[in-house]
Amino acid sequence: MPVGTLAAVKGILPEQLRRAGVRMLLANTYHLTLRPGESVVAELGGLHRFMDWSGPILTDSGGFQVFSLSRMTRVTDHGVTFRSHIDGRALELTPERAVEIQEALGSDVAMVLDHVVELPNTHGHITEAVERTLRWAERSRNAHRCPRQALFGIVQGGLDPELRIRCAERLVELDFCGYAVGGLSVGESADEMARTLEVTVPVLPEDRPRYLMGVGRPEDLLEAVSRGIDLFDCVMPTRNGRNAMAFTDVGPLRLRNRQFQRDPRPIDADCPCPACRYSRGYLRHLFMAGEMLGPILLSLHNLTYYQRLMAETRAAIEQSRYPEFHRLKRHGWRTPAEDRANRSHDANRLGEGSRGA
Amino acid sequence: MPVGTLAAVKGILPEQLRRAGVRMLLANTYHLTLRPGESVVAELGGLHRFMDWSGPILTDSGGFQVFSLSRMTRVTDHGVTFRSHIDGRALELTPERAVEIQEALGSDVAMVLDHVVELPNTHGHITEAVERTLRWAERSRNAHRCPRQALFGIVQGGLDPELRIRCAERLVELDFCGYAVGGLSVGESADEMARTLEVTVPVLPEDRPRYLMGVGRPEDLLEAVSRGIDLFDCVMPTRNGRNAMAFTDVGPLRLRNRQFQRDPRPIDADCPCPACRYSRGYLRHLFMAGEMLGPILLSLHNLTYYQRLMAETRAAIEQSRYPEFHRLKRHGWRTPAEDRANRSHDANRLGEGSRGA
Repeated sequence: MPVGTLAAVKGILPEQLRRAGVRMLLANTYHLTLRPGESVVAELGGLHRFMDWSGPILTDSGGFQVFSLSRMTRVTDHGVTFRSHIDGRALELTPERAVEIQEALGSDVAMVLDHVVELPNTHGHITEAVERTLRWAERSRNAHRCPRQALFGIVQGGLDPELRIRCAERLVELDFCGYAVGGLSVGESADEMARTLEVTVPVLPEDRPRYLMGVGRPEDLLEAVSRGIDLFDCVMPTRNGRNAMAFTDVGPLRLRNRQFQRDPRPIDADCPCPACRYSRGYLRHLFMAGEMLGPILLSLHNLTYYQRLMAETRAAIEQSRYPEFHRLKRHGWRTPAEDRANRSHDANRLGEGSRGA
Repeated sequence: MPVGTLAAVKGILPEQLRRAGVRMLLANTYHLTLRPGESVVAELGGLHRFMDWSGPILTDSGGFQVFSLSRMTRVTDHGVTFRSHIDGRALELTPERAVEIQEALGSDVAMVLDHVVELPNTHGHITEAVERTLRWAERSRNAHRCPRQALFGIVQGGLDPELRIRCAERLVELDFCGYAVGGLSVGESADEMARTLEVTVPVLPEDRPRYLMGVGRPEDLLEAVSRGIDLFDCVMPTRNGRNAMAFTDVGPLRLRNRQFQRDPRPIDADCPCPACRYSRGYLRHLFMAGEMLGPILLSLHNLTYYQRLMAETRAAIEQSRYPEFHRLKRHGWRTPAEDRANRSHDANRLGEGSRGA
């Protein structure tokens, strides 16, 4: 899912999303309740009509944003009080309120409010957050009314296998339509993420969507698919596109680099996206001149890249050749210096999407 | 002609321009020689290939920008020396150099270098600028080599009827493929512009395109069409769109206004543009939230509005009902307070397009 935080994927029209292969979008409860307010969205026909998107929309509950973006956050069992990052006004988010907002927005998938803690953290704090997340999950489920909207639970538990397993098991007892793995992609290593998925995913029922929040780089997606994840959201295709970075099968290109000034080749000769009608030299020119068309074109390229990658992934799974497919992709991407730079860069810019990345 | 100053209409893809009815674009010699440099554009296949636009492209000579944007401008008969507004580097533009750059860019229509003076100004200075513009026009014509590229002369002369007539007559003797009226839309009244066109246009041959540079508001376009003008360029559709202003047949809408917060209507129910798929409430939300999609959608709406207006104008002329058509349009637009505010606003923001407005 590309991220349309404020009911818009930055700079991209719905028709362009469809042509890039996008089928489902994410929008943010936290951002939309602050601006324009869920009552405005509801009065203007709900999120689908509001943003002219007929495909499915998932809304995040606001939990992650409250903990990463807002100021003076105070958590009690009742809920979270915080100050808006826009105008400082005091607000409260409870499990019931998060469900109510998402029902007013009219998304197809709503998320329960969860308690996200920073990593690394003490075992005591992470345990406390898991217990609160579970109590809030139950209250969310009880508050949820809308039969046309699916409600997903969120597994927390940091990097602790026992906490992850306990949280997942108790969520499954609550019987949600789908399950998310939260609290990852917040600075931990790729190995730590993989190990956490390896203990968590097997607990989640195979017949329900399993969603890894806020992930990630193409290599992270394929690692998570190997471990049973079905659904992702991430701002990387659009945010990195706006920052002149284009994803390709041979690693990322940074289009501001001087080496591209007179380069007549497209980013990728086999890519059907609108950006690949142009030379790298033109794309570089747009970024150097501060033209909006640069961010737009690279966002379109990256969205197309991610959607094609997932389409190829589905085909490889169906044809029972996923391990070989994964190996070939990984081999192409192996440009370690760039990967590391990119990963630490993005871990520092939390909050726009549903979760980190 | 929409304005693609730096070989891009801000935020709009060529395909979107075509769907808005756009047939011809303007790009700027001054901006493109500074960034990325005409040699880069030439090496990457010329302006059409560079920006993926197969329709005609007109390039302005850079005269207006040198006088409005750059610093430490010094004019001699040889040419103009100036410092770049980007990095302060010293540059020179001569009539021959302006032709050379435009040939390298590969535009379909090139403009001669002209000497633009501020208004109001002394008769002596305006006369001197007209004489220099004429000498430069002849040098431009002699320097021009490319047979696939049309070269247009530019009439100067401020608001002085005799100077305008003399300038136009002597340009016609030089036999250009087309003629532009320059030095207008720089703060003079609508009446002054009309009177200047009334003395100038009759001198220009009917079988050549007559182009009014840097104009303007929809009402200015129709007034100029009444006086024989065929071709315009203006940043207003895109710049005003980026500033949340939408043109309509009943005057402009300012989409940031609070009155639109819960307005479910489109800007114009009869408009086929992508913006008119949305409620005014959504468009307002995009601007209040600082989403790029707001400027993009309103630019598309305004481009569509201008192209439809010109298409209706051509049809009215062909069907010999232009005066009635003009009267009805003028009646709809009559929202004097808004018009005045808009006009003075835009007269202060010169330089992005070919000329003012």
